[in-house]
Amino acid sequence: MNASTLNHLPTRILMGPGPSNVHPRVLKAMATPVIGHLDPMFLKVMDETRENLRLLFRTKNHFTIAISGTGSAGMEAAIVNILEPGDRIMIGVAGVFGERMCDVAGRCGAEVARIEAAWGDIITPEQIAAELKKQPTKVVAVVHAETSTGAHQPLQEIAKIAHEHGALLLVDAVTSLGGCEISVDDWGIDICYSGAQKCISCPPGLAPITFNERAMEAVRARKTKVQSWYLDMTMIERYWGEERFYHHTAPISMLYALAEALNIIMEEGLEARWQRHARLGAALHKGLEAMGLKLLAKQGHRLPMLTSVGIPEGVDDLVVRRSLLADLNIELGGGLGAFKGKAWRVGLMGESCCQANVLLILSALEALLCAQGITIPPGAGITKAAEALKT
Amino acid sequence: MNASTLNHLPTRILMGPGPSNVHPRVLKAMATPVIGHLDPMFLKVMDETRENLRLLFRTKNHFTIAISGTGSAGMEAAIVNILEPGDRIMIGVAGVFGERMCDVAGRCGAEVARIEAAWGDIITPEQIAAELKKQPTKVVAVVHAETSTGAHQPLQEIAKIAHEHGALLLVDAVTSLGGCEISVDDWGIDICYSGAQKCISCPPGLAPITFNERAMEAVRARKTKVQSWYLDMTMIERYWGEERFYHHTAPISMLYALAEALNIIMEEGLEARWQRHARLGAALHKGLEAMGLKLLAKQGHRLPMLTSVGIPEGVDDLVVRRSLLADLNIELGGGLGAFKGKAWRVGLMGESCCQANVLLILSALEALLCAQGITIPPGAGITKAAEALKT
Repeated sequence: MNASTLNHLPTRILMGPGPSNVHPRVLKAMATPVIGHLDPMFLKVMDETRENLRLLFRTKNHFTIAISGTGSAGMEAAIVNILEPGDRIMIGVAGVFGERMCDVAGRCGAEVARIEAAWGDIITPEQIAAELKKQPTKVVAVVHAETSTGAHQPLQEIAKIAHEHGALLLVDAVTSLGGCEISVDDWGIDICYSGAQKCISCPPGLAPITFNERAMEAVRARKTKVQSWYLDMTMIERYWGEERFYHHTAPISMLYALAEALNIIMEEGLEARWQRHARLGAALHKGLEAMGLKLLAKQGHRLPMLTSVGIPEGVDDLVVRRSLLADLNIELGGGLGAFKGKAWRVGLMGESCCQANVLLILSALEALLCAQGITIPPGAGITKAAEALKT
Repeated sequence: MNASTLNHLPTRILMGPGPSNVHPRVLKAMATPVIGHLDPMFLKVMDETRENLRLLFRTKNHFTIAISGTGSAGMEAAIVNILEPGDRIMIGVAGVFGERMCDVAGRCGAEVARIEAAWGDIITPEQIAAELKKQPTKVVAVVHAETSTGAHQPLQEIAKIAHEHGALLLVDAVTSLGGCEISVDDWGIDICYSGAQKCISCPPGLAPITFNERAMEAVRARKTKVQSWYLDMTMIERYWGEERFYHHTAPISMLYALAEALNIIMEEGLEARWQRHARLGAALHKGLEAMGLKLLAKQGHRLPMLTSVGIPEGVDDLVVRRSLLADLNIELGGGLGAFKGKAWRVGLMGESCCQANVLLILSALEALLCAQGITIPPGAGITKAAEALKT
């Protein structure tokens, strides 16, 4: 059908908060003919995916799978399985995704204790410790990479404190997994979830998740059923596990895509991949600052794969983003929540994280900001970034 | 990676309860490069998909979208949005999927009134009327096409009775949509959901759903938040609607697939598609009966796209299904629940619904059953089916 927009889609350079660009091998994998969700050959693909997800999360957790939904379904799965009405959860809130966790937990009938930090800042271990002393708490939840601000939350000390107080640590790694270190076992994370479309560079539609034995014990000890049938881990485990008991029809083609995206990650090597993101993220940060722009995440706690940058006074957010999209086929992220209209979010995730994209976005922003009357020393951004890339 | 099973997958003829075979155009659509979920061009694809979904459901309902999950997520979305704790729902149970609805509704804290029929049978309007007289009921829920039995539940009279008693009618059309008539507006269905991987012949991962204005009013009148954040229709509507407010990242590639699958359906024409399924389903039924096999759904209420057939005494279920898969690359469905080990489920859905598959499954079953010592008049099945196809 020539009338269908599907046949007239542009090719974009995806430098927003996700999805990121998808490797042609992953696109090709998705076009593999569909076979049944109980076909022994498909179950083999699931087993291999599971093994690779364990490597990605750096865990030996038996319960490591991909939820049949996007990253937000991963968040919901983590929270509704671990919480029962009346349970207490402490949630770190310093952006949209911490806020979202509070909403999801509230819908479980849980008592939600918010620990807040300014947007762009992180939650400190001291804040967590002070709050944990007040009352018995079942779960401490934090966002490792706050996609709305670009802040990089340290986790190891928080894990220790949570465990000292008998709480489980639940971590949102939607934006970080595959782009910087997250070591579920070594760091003592009990529950961790992510999304396929960020640093894994798979299309959106799956949410990798892992529960350790301690977390699964808590799930099995529930007095009430998990409120979501679709996301009930005790039932899903019977399908992903040896029993192969039918729960729901798995999203076959999406799992093909994830399998291939994970193959690509393992070929590059996890550490090499983190280093690539760290190096290019740092170059982008230097370039943006050299242009006189302000990074909104706190220094020392900036993510490499997602950078929030202040929109200079007088600049029209939409004019710039529309022009990037229409003239250059570049997608840049707008601000969310408190940062709406005040920040851009530059993504360097997975396949989108390459030198060419760093230079491209810096030069494009220079041109567009100058056109809006902002004074920028010519070439300052790309010069500084290129310098950083040489070292 | 040659080691990856992904590169060594067989091509199967999918004649189980879904997924069905996927047209190469749909596979190709999925390989379209990913663009952003807020990209104006992607929003256009969503709008076109929405229009085609309305045609498919035969509805003018504004709220007609695809849920970012498989058919079971559609079931959960329908139920958790409409029910609050203490609400009464009456559910028709004559197979696994009616049973599943009870489980989902119970997890909402609803009072569940079960109306039962034998497996393979349908729920009668009289049963519904009798139960509705007892107590005020918010929702009547039935399964249009019970995938575990192959029974075809009539809906129009039940809709009338439900409305006379002030109840909403909620219908599971996972297996029927696109394969036989379901006219949401004309028949008075208030909430209806389906799955992508049955008669729509899209890979699994999306659940088309529609709520009419009366149902949406009930959702808006809730006193409590919808217990699932991910499936909260009032929030999802703000993304699919004109506001384009970010909720969760849409499964882009899956929506490409659905868009193309719907294009193919509209090219064939809905009524022609129903007739194709009816004609081939009837031929299959005649062929199976001519072989001396027993159809387990009640006569007069048999689905064309999903046929449950009794496994003759003394025949080994697994030997037959494994041989079909290994030697002929045919996937046949096993029995679920009460029919486990006792029935096979033969799917003729969407792309899988073609003359060649009817003849193939009849001749394959004849050969395999004869090998297991069952006496079948040679060629009885294919002769009868071919005869039926001529008329």
